[in-house]
Amino acid sequence: MNEFELITHLTKSLPTNENVVVGAGDDCAVLDLGVPEKLILFKTDAVVEGIHFTKATPPEKIGRKALARCLSDIGAMAGTPTTALVTIALPKDFDAAFVTKIYDGLNALAEKTGVAIVGGETTTNPERILISIALIGTVPRGKQILRRGAKIGDAIFVTGELGGSLAEKHLDFEPRLAEARWLTEHFTIHSMMDLSDGLGGDLRHLLNASKVGAEILKPAVPISRAAKLRAKASSGAKPAFVAALTDGEDFELLFTIASKDAVKLLDAWKAKFPKLKLSCVGKIVAGDGILIRDKTGSHKLNANGYVHFA
Amino acid sequence: MNEFELITHLTKSLPTNENVVVGAGDDCAVLDLGVPEKLILFKTDAVVEGIHFTKATPPEKIGRKALARCLSDIGAMAGTPTTALVTIALPKDFDAAFVTKIYDGLNALAEKTGVAIVGGETTTNPERILISIALIGTVPRGKQILRRGAKIGDAIFVTGELGGSLAEKHLDFEPRLAEARWLTEHFTIHSMMDLSDGLGGDLRHLLNASKVGAEILKPAVPISRAAKLRAKASSGAKPAFVAALTDGEDFELLFTIASKDAVKLLDAWKAKFPKLKLSCVGKIVAGDGILIRDKTGSHKLNANGYVHFA
Repeated sequence: MNEFELITHLTKSLPTNENVVVGAGDDCAVLDLGVPEKLILFKTDAVVEGIHFTKATPPEKIGRKALARCLSDIGAMAGTPTTALVTIALPKDFDAAFVTKIYDGLNALAEKTGVAIVGGETTTNPERILISIALIGTVPRGKQILRRGAKIGDAIFVTGELGGSLAEKHLDFEPRLAEARWLTEHFTIHSMMDLSDGLGGDLRHLLNASKVGAEILKPAVPISRAAKLRAKASSGAKPAFVAALTDGEDFELLFTIASKDAVKLLDAWKAKFPKLKLSCVGKIVAGDGILIRDKTGSHKLNANGYVHFA
Repeated sequence: MNEFELITHLTKSLPTNENVVVGAGDDCAVLDLGVPEKLILFKTDAVVEGIHFTKATPPEKIGRKALARCLSDIGAMAGTPTTALVTIALPKDFDAAFVTKIYDGLNALAEKTGVAIVGGETTTNPERILISIALIGTVPRGKQILRRGAKIGDAIFVTGELGGSLAEKHLDFEPRLAEARWLTEHFTIHSMMDLSDGLGGDLRHLLNASKVGAEILKPAVPISRAAKLRAKASSGAKPAFVAALTDGEDFELLFTIASKDAVKLLDAWKAKFPKLKLSCVGKIVAGDGILIRDKTGSHKLNANGYVHFA
């Protein structure tokens, strides 16, 4: 059983109550706690030494990344983050100066995004540092954007450029909070999520939640310079397009919108966010799974993010 | 720098915002998110293999304990738990059946206490299982009980019996949710917290928050049978009274109330919760720190929970 199968198994029948608007399976849980005009967003996310960062990662960037990942999920619901708790598990011989710098990086991003840090916990994890963030946010009632709303005919958009995040971006990415809120304030966004596992895997989650398929236009997918450089660097490297689909940790927005709004959106976006690329990469179709269209035709994308040329 | 010094250092100047009623330093954070009659409680807590449980611990009890610890903190604020997220970090070769049973134990307690599990995360921790719970609760506005409200002359109470938790209770304790709510509905409770580190250490936190001291009557401290048995089992074992002050993981309530209400409370408690002991263990005094009074006089309790007979 892999991680995704385990999650599916564990989330099959979870205890629920009248506060739950959206439970497990989206970027955040959505709760109705009785705030007159708002719903509550609730999210946790962990980073682990040796997996999401290394002993050589600057500690400020570790703290920043830990919080930024959670912020990205609040963004993906078009929400506003408000309050976080920080759980940090440390080896017994922790370096207090290093831990302080982790918090400095985390606190700086919290200040910038208006998030209060209201405590948390330190505990022991003998072999490596692990940081888990719990984040509460809010979203105006009815304005939360879920994964499950994609409609056949929708245009599929992504922000920024994809792939090659490990070179640098995974430590420095900007959670797309303002962009997501602007999108929902000015357009009818049908479905949205953030890209954490790579377009190939994450789009599949969105499609499954919406019970539709997608056709991606290969030349339309925005590939990062880092992914292109890496592909060129050695003959054994991932092709840049595959990197854009599978590298993960892009932390860009993936969303769908009625095709008729696509051109208007692109124009308005360019005026509002001139420095951040917005790309229409394909469309929602009937069926399931992902088709990659290039000049040779349409090819089914398999579960590993590689194109199967049948 | 030990864990407590680190926490003090890290929580000195945390980012805040207008939602924060109580930040770091109490059993839960207290937030005002605009629910007309309620405040929001927010808490995280982690359990780690080899520290809070072992490979031999029945997995259902691991999951139960992970959630129960957080519930105990919601109880300590006189709140009602509503929603939890579960972060579980697993070695790569995890046993899916074992993990499922962890969730079974956790879900059973969630059902029982009305808590919805709205997702969470699985991640990798190669050497050991770590489970972090993030919990949201609510409390009627103005009814939250903090650590900082103890007043000189207050009677100090604890529920249950203390010490020896490791023998069994740390896996089976009942979070005192109903008891804490009943207390605040029927009496003016000045300060409250749950006992996780032992009466010696935890009372000190409450005293420091309230800027007062305490005098504990040694014979009044309720000592668990497990602590007494363990003390008798070997000549090198902790004396039972020291165990009651320092073992930790009691997960009982510690609270203070005006002395004039003490007898009325004891009578009402006996009628309402006949199976759960409630003990008046001493009183709040001016100054700081903890004095232990026995037939030989008053002795200052040092930071390690041992009595210093000067």
